Amino acid sequence: MSPSIQKLIEKFSKFPTIGPRTAARFVFYLIKLPKEEMEELIKSISELREKVKLCSFCFKPFEPSPRDPELCEICSNPNRDKSLLCVVEKETDLETIEKTKKYKGLYFILGGTVSKLKKTDIKNLRTEELLERAKKPEIKEIIIAVNPTPEGEATALYLERLLKNPPAGRRITRLGRGLPVGGELEYADPETLSSALEGRK
Amino acid sequence: MSPSIQKLIEKFSKFPTIGPRTAARFVFYLIKLPKEEMEELIKSISELREKVKLCSFCFKPFEPSPRDPELCEICSNPNRDKSLLCVVEKETDLETIEKTKKYKGLYFILGGTVSKLKKTDIKNLRTEELLERAKKPEIKEIIIAVNPTPEGEATALYLERLLKNPPAGRRITRLGRGLPVGGELEYADPETLSSALEGRK
Amino acid sequence: MSPSIQKLIEKFSKFPTIGPRTAARFVFYLIKLPKEEMEELIKSISELREKVKLCSFCFKPFEPSPRDPELCEICSNPNRDKSLLCVVEKETDLETIEKTKKYKGLYFILGGTVSKLKKTDIKNLRTEELLERAKKPEIKEIIIAVNPTPEGEATALYLERLLKNPPAGRRITRLGRGLPVGGELEYADPETLSSALEGRK
Amino acid sequence: MSPSIQKLIEKFSKFPTIGPRTAARFVFYLIKLPKEEMEELIKSISELREKVKLCSFCFKPFEPSPRDPELCEICSNPNRDKSLLCVVEKETDLETIEKTKKYKGLYFILGGTVSKLKKTDIKNLRTEELLERAKKPEIKEIIIAVNPTPEGEATALYLERLLKNPPAGRRITRLGRGLPVGGELEYADPETLSSALEGRK
Repeated sequence: MSPSIQKLIEKFSKFPTIGPRTAARFVFYLIKLPKEEMEELIKSISELREKVKLCSFCFKPFEPSPRDPELCEICSNPNRDKSLLCVVEKETDLETIEKTKKYKGLYFILGGTVSKLKKTDIKNLRTEELLERAKKPEIKEIIIAVNPTPEGEATALYLERLLKNPPAGRRITRLGRGLPVGGELEYADPETLSSALEGRK
Repeated sequence: MSPSIQKLIEKFSKFPTIGPRTAARFVFYLIKLPKEEMEELIKSISELREKVKLCSFCFKPFEPSPRDPELCEICSNPNRDKSLLCVVEKETDLETIEKTKKYKGLYFILGGTVSKLKKTDIKNLRTEELLERAKKPEIKEIIIAVNPTPEGEATALYLERLLKNPPAGRRITRLGRGLPVGGELEYADPETLSSALEGRK
Repeated sequence: MSPSIQKLIEKFSKFPTIGPRTAARFVFYLIKLPKEEMEELIKSISELREKVKLCSFCFKPFEPSPRDPELCEICSNPNRDKSLLCVVEKETDLETIEKTKKYKGLYFILGGTVSKLKKTDIKNLRTEELLERAKKPEIKEIIIAVNPTPEGEATALYLERLLKNPPAGRRITRLGRGLPVGGELEYADPETLSSALEGRK
Repeated sequence: MSPSIQKLIEKFSKFPTIGPRTAARFVFYLIKLPKEEMEELIKSISELREKVKLCSFCFKPFEPSPRDPELCEICSNPNRDKSLLCVVEKETDLETIEKTKKYKGLYFILGGTVSKLKKTDIKNLRTEELLERAKKPEIKEIIIAVNPTPEGEATALYLERLLKNPPAGRRITRLGRGLPVGGELEYADPETLSSALEGRK
């Protein structure tokens, strides 16, 4: 394969979830793309850097406006409940929670998980920024909304230790466990089923 | 294929989850089974009918003893909490809940689900027997432990209507919904995630 | 669970492809089976041993008739091509090939595969019986119809060595490799694709 | 979500195999990419158009050199067998066949398949260019290397009709069908197994 194709396959192979086979299909797709669509794609990618910055409170990517140069549309929304802070691992988790339209508080994007409490892993998380946010007295509940996976559990335990000694009246919570919609009792693992029994209502 | 093999393949094809291909493998397995193992298998199947009966309270299959000719080992256990009644669809659901070792109450095996509230479906459920059990004043909570599937939902709604006007102080509950162990927030459907948010603790 | 249920679950768990969970569902299915269906099932299983024997040539299970007390319906069929012998691992493979209606020769059921040419594995195969059949001068081709898996490959190599020095004019063949119906070139492994290229026509 | 993020998600959603969820992850990946890696990615995409063109014989994307401004490295390779022409649906199929290192002839990228012989589908294929190539008298075999799927079959039938009345001594072939490596006889469909029987060797 020609070097410029090979080089681009390598770059696309670093995209999340993409292997070399799909990366190759991307390149062949781009080669056949009409000239103007190609130019628009390049323009869109280039503008991303100029137009998008990370919210100074929650680290969500957003497009600053003159009215709100620092805060994203959630953090600057006066109708959001400032007493709730939901800590998520990554941007897509925030978007998934927003789609439920059930959560009205603020977010904080941690930027990753810790699998084995390695120092290098922890350094990549925004823990200092989280501690800074956690100082705000108006926060009454911090929801640690990590995945119920081993990595998520380790991260949640680490955050609970980090956020200990909270101001009076503050709660630290986690997402409820139970049977997912469409799940079957018979195939549920004992821990999930125990949570579903405890959380009955 | 010979008629006696064909006949047995048809019978095994009626076993739950078994198609004709696996049924054929069963028959070829039996043909090669040592004589005494074959005789033991036939004896075990024959004895099932003689030795096992359904518990007169919860309909769980059990082996009656002179001490307890009518009630299974759960219903006759003085340490079980008689104020809790957990309604399940089928035997394996009861076994799955028992394995969690978290539930100490009694059970009731409904015998199926209703998908579209058809009269014929409802007739197959043990609804009269459930109403009979529900009359017991010591029952303080009836847990409708059906699958969070459309069929389970329809069944739960039907049972809630059936059991309405409960004695004062009795609750009718359902299993908690939420993220299952090992699940990922990003792939959770909005309803599951909403439940996980509401059920946080 | 009661001992007679537990015992039968253990027996069903030894059936091919069946684990304890499905075995339990079998037992609960049997408990609810109408009396006469249960009796018919037991009768069918019992008769299997009396009515079915293994063909003295190919080892296929069959129901002997007064006319053909020793040979199965394939081996005793005068229209089958006696110059072709297809060696298969197990009964279901024979049935699968018969369903294509494309093969008109005879079969031989080897009774298993050898994974690592262990002596104990080889002892379980009907290799002596195969050598005996292979002496027949009318056989012009022996088709080694094993799975194209590592175990199948090892078995084929072993059989090829065993059957070496065939009578003049006899061929030893294997099933053709290539792309399966519905497969996609892009996901084919290099060996399969090489075979498909070589076998083009 | 901000408009520039939304716009780029839409563009990535048109990439082959990519849905909006993965497209969103791409955008969040790009936002966090170091400045210089981002610039290199944009440069690689931009250069693709300038540096890569389609081979004038086989339509494979390649990087023209002064020595070979029109033909790709396969078509200009004097060691390739000019008597063989392998017609593939798309670029990745060509790459997959090259990886086997078993094929030494030339290729022709058709550019798609016809599912129902619709005129609009056929117009998108390079059929005229194929007919042009097929005029070359040195070609002794045209291999129609499409997927053994319904679409592939329809395309192969269409091409066979299109290429009928070939010069004397020319063959039109298709890839061999059979059991794929690792496949199991028991689960093979009858057509695949029939092909494997016919193609035995």
